[in-house]
Amino acid sequence: MITNLRALEPQELSDFCKDLKKEVISKVSDKIPHLESSLAVAELTVALHYILNTPKDVLIWDVGHQGYIHKALTGRLDGLESQRTSGGISGFLKRDESPYDFFGAGHASTSISALAGVCIADHANKVFRRRVAVIGDGSLTGGQSFEALNHLASIDTSALVILNDNDQSIDDTIGGLHINGGYKEYFESLGWSYTKFEKGKNISLLVSQLQACMAQGGKQVLHLRTKKPNLSPPKSYEPGTTFQWWAAEALRSAMESQRKIHVISPAMFAGSGFAPLRDEFPLRMHDTGINEPHAVTLAAGMAVADVLPWVHIYSTFLQRAIDQVIHDIALQKLPVVFLVDRAGLVGADGPTHHGVFDSGMLHDVPGAMIWQPKDGDELQAMIHQAAHIQHELQGPLFIRYPKDKTVCDSPVSFEEMRHEVMVGSNSLLVSTGALSAQVKQGLFDHVHLAQTKPLPVAFCELLGNYDSVVLLEEANGFGGMTGMVSAFMSKADIETKLVLRKIPDAFTDHGKRNELLRELGLIP
Amino acid sequence: MITNLRALEPQELSDFCKDLKKEVISKVSDKIPHLESSLAVAELTVALHYILNTPKDVLIWDVGHQGYIHKALTGRLDGLESQRTSGGISGFLKRDESPYDFFGAGHASTSISALAGVCIADHANKVFRRRVAVIGDGSLTGGQSFEALNHLASIDTSALVILNDNDQSIDDTIGGLHINGGYKEYFESLGWSYTKFEKGKNISLLVSQLQACMAQGGKQVLHLRTKKPNLSPPKSYEPGTTFQWWAAEALRSAMESQRKIHVISPAMFAGSGFAPLRDEFPLRMHDTGINEPHAVTLAAGMAVADVLPWVHIYSTFLQRAIDQVIHDIALQKLPVVFLVDRAGLVGADGPTHHGVFDSGMLHDVPGAMIWQPKDGDELQAMIHQAAHIQHELQGPLFIRYPKDKTVCDSPVSFEEMRHEVMVGSNSLLVSTGALSAQVKQGLFDHVHLAQTKPLPVAFCELLGNYDSVVLLEEANGFGGMTGMVSAFMSKADIETKLVLRKIPDAFTDHGKRNELLRELGLIP
Repeated sequence: MITNLRALEPQELSDFCKDLKKEVISKVSDKIPHLESSLAVAELTVALHYILNTPKDVLIWDVGHQGYIHKALTGRLDGLESQRTSGGISGFLKRDESPYDFFGAGHASTSISALAGVCIADHANKVFRRRVAVIGDGSLTGGQSFEALNHLASIDTSALVILNDNDQSIDDTIGGLHINGGYKEYFESLGWSYTKFEKGKNISLLVSQLQACMAQGGKQVLHLRTKKPNLSPPKSYEPGTTFQWWAAEALRSAMESQRKIHVISPAMFAGSGFAPLRDEFPLRMHDTGINEPHAVTLAAGMAVADVLPWVHIYSTFLQRAIDQVIHDIALQKLPVVFLVDRAGLVGADGPTHHGVFDSGMLHDVPGAMIWQPKDGDELQAMIHQAAHIQHELQGPLFIRYPKDKTVCDSPVSFEEMRHEVMVGSNSLLVSTGALSAQVKQGLFDHVHLAQTKPLPVAFCELLGNYDSVVLLEEANGFGGMTGMVSAFMSKADIETKLVLRKIPDAFTDHGKRNELLRELGLIP
Repeated sequence: MITNLRALEPQELSDFCKDLKKEVISKVSDKIPHLESSLAVAELTVALHYILNTPKDVLIWDVGHQGYIHKALTGRLDGLESQRTSGGISGFLKRDESPYDFFGAGHASTSISALAGVCIADHANKVFRRRVAVIGDGSLTGGQSFEALNHLASIDTSALVILNDNDQSIDDTIGGLHINGGYKEYFESLGWSYTKFEKGKNISLLVSQLQACMAQGGKQVLHLRTKKPNLSPPKSYEPGTTFQWWAAEALRSAMESQRKIHVISPAMFAGSGFAPLRDEFPLRMHDTGINEPHAVTLAAGMAVADVLPWVHIYSTFLQRAIDQVIHDIALQKLPVVFLVDRAGLVGADGPTHHGVFDSGMLHDVPGAMIWQPKDGDELQAMIHQAAHIQHELQGPLFIRYPKDKTVCDSPVSFEEMRHEVMVGSNSLLVSTGALSAQVKQGLFDHVHLAQTKPLPVAFCELLGNYDSVVLLEEANGFGGMTGMVSAFMSKADIETKLVLRKIPDAFTDHGKRNELLRELGLIP
């Protein structure tokens, strides 16, 4: 398709692009989240592949939500139908998948850093080619994009950054830069040449503009105004069916009873199911943009000034702020509650987004408390309890819950949450989080650990009674709950045999959550 | 002293400040690293405490190197003599230490995030007070400062950010913003009011300027040009005595033999001992500024464009880029070598800087390889081997070494590095890194594990031969080497008793490295 494209005359590009969009929409519009992001840059995508000699020339996308038209153009149009399902192509840019995916993407704000790396390498290798990164205005709120722009500006090279400005991070873009529209001054202050282009839908004008920018050389920014089409209504969770919906319910009630609670989210209020709360508590819900390090230190600043901060954050993005958790919150013993959403395997989004690394990191944080509910009832009890005890906390409290269905049918109090089913076995199965609800009962004695740090004393006292203990945890790595229990047993000189069942030491591909859990041997 | 200060007339401030500086220099100039950073802001510090009603008004310092005059002014002049020694005061800002230390500092670029948190909380609590953060031009290269400036600009509040611009990060400040001097355009593009003030040494003028900024309200930046005095020569390592010096020696030889190696450091070339290499390989040594996330993705970008990137980074700062290690390097299977400096306890810098959390994080990264030398000979062998095999790597390779003395007296090859001393005991002691050199020999069989991930097969085969295995590791947490060995033994069904000796699950204070290790029971 690329070869056909490059044989066209400029005036034919518009029809080519329209046909391509139609084909993509007709095939997959009901199957692809964030497709709007790609459609908004359809003309840009076609124009770039028309001008550039990809894959030899360098085209780097940020995040990857913008990449579906790019995928369609580069041999994966049919593949889009099965994308994000087991065995199908990825929802993000992925080097394994195509030489046209020059650099992988999934988390935001990395594209300009990668571009800078290519510039340095090309200079060293005396490679001359065109180099382009496309970044959304949302990703630009992540500080790594500033770091990269600032550093790349000081390197003697040629590179083009295209700012795809559609007013949206995921939620509406926030921040002074966007509100003031100060992009020209911003890029120029760092040493970049800046051009604004409003006619992004006119593909032949766009081609000329891109060629002009590239011909100028040096560090060029092209600021393109685009508009997402409205294909689908904003995401919402069916009432009463998911951890996300119940989290919002419980948080509402906690915010009503404790007026000092403020909630921070790095651009994920909509994805979290908390969007309705923003309307109800507009002064107490703070969207910081896509910038996890700032969001976490912001919470620390709020805590020292006498409000009770909660941070809503996806597990996979919390990886970006683990230093701030350690340095600004745990070390200073500040009472901050974290709602760690998307903990565990996330399914279709795949390896860039599985929430499988935070457990190891968080259990290693001194003074941290970690709760992992098995269902919506426990999640609600935990959120209420967190609001109740927050003022006494001497460090962070993490409540980890998955992207999954759950119901609430039998309310529990926080005290009742240690769930045991004893059948008189010599073996004890220990699990935590939503996996506990999927354990097949009756084969072994079973304990669901709702609190995995610190380990409950009553639980610890049980361990010596068994010939073997099986520890089941939906996480990568060698620490986490399994590491804590192993360390306790070693210290307490309990010689019970231990069996660890975790995610193996490898990246897990995309697919349906329950199918993945079954393949990994974590559920029956 | 604060009370005395506030009773002075403005024209008396200059003498007060001179006397204070003299006193601090005479007492502690030979004992305090980074004292120059504080002396450069002596006038500013005195002026701020003169105007502000601290500690009720909010004064937040970034990093903390700027904080010694502040400490002297707020009751800790005598304490400075014993600072950074066991039982003495900290080298950084610390909330436990004084109510005047409103927010802790140690890692860079956090101050404006904390300031934003205070602004939000004060608004909610209807607290009216002055709020100031002081940040250096070096810390401003960290993207978190951009995230915070951008977010805070969109909040209806009053806050003053003072940019303390002395042209230095730690090394010289890099980046387009600083080179172009585009600070006015930068801050204004984000929505901040900007004032430049060149006469920072004239304290009564400075007082007037600060009062004018505060009177204006809103979001104000005051850009102050300062100059660090040259008290001490730049840091260098005595030849042949430290891990740092030997790392530089080996790296030089690796760079000579493999011309594709490029080295990246987030502002730490001087601290690392690599400063001389910058002169020898000016085009292959890349200082990015204080911005670890960018530095790591930059390496990924270089790797996909056919150079061989090495990242030099302190363990404690690697925490800031663990997401980029996972998402950009390990998931994409890119061959990047990390020289993880300051791994383990760092001594005088204390809990903000101990390199005790990365081990747990890194061992959990799929496909990572981890080497931990016991001395300079092994470090050299590892660096040579890394250069030799880098092109074949399928992911990151981490070489962790401490801030400590070592010598090289018996060169080893990489193959010879698994070091065993067998005395026919029923117990096996397993250690890694520099601790291995301090194990008292002759009591138990002893294995030093130079490579802790993946675990060497020959080592694994040993484990079943013993009644008990003691695992010794200079790290916090429940994963790391101890977690890997525990998991292997569980999987291999080896019922040998395990004893874990690590840093307990708490923050470790400052003090001499060997004293701390002894107190923690890790060395005899």
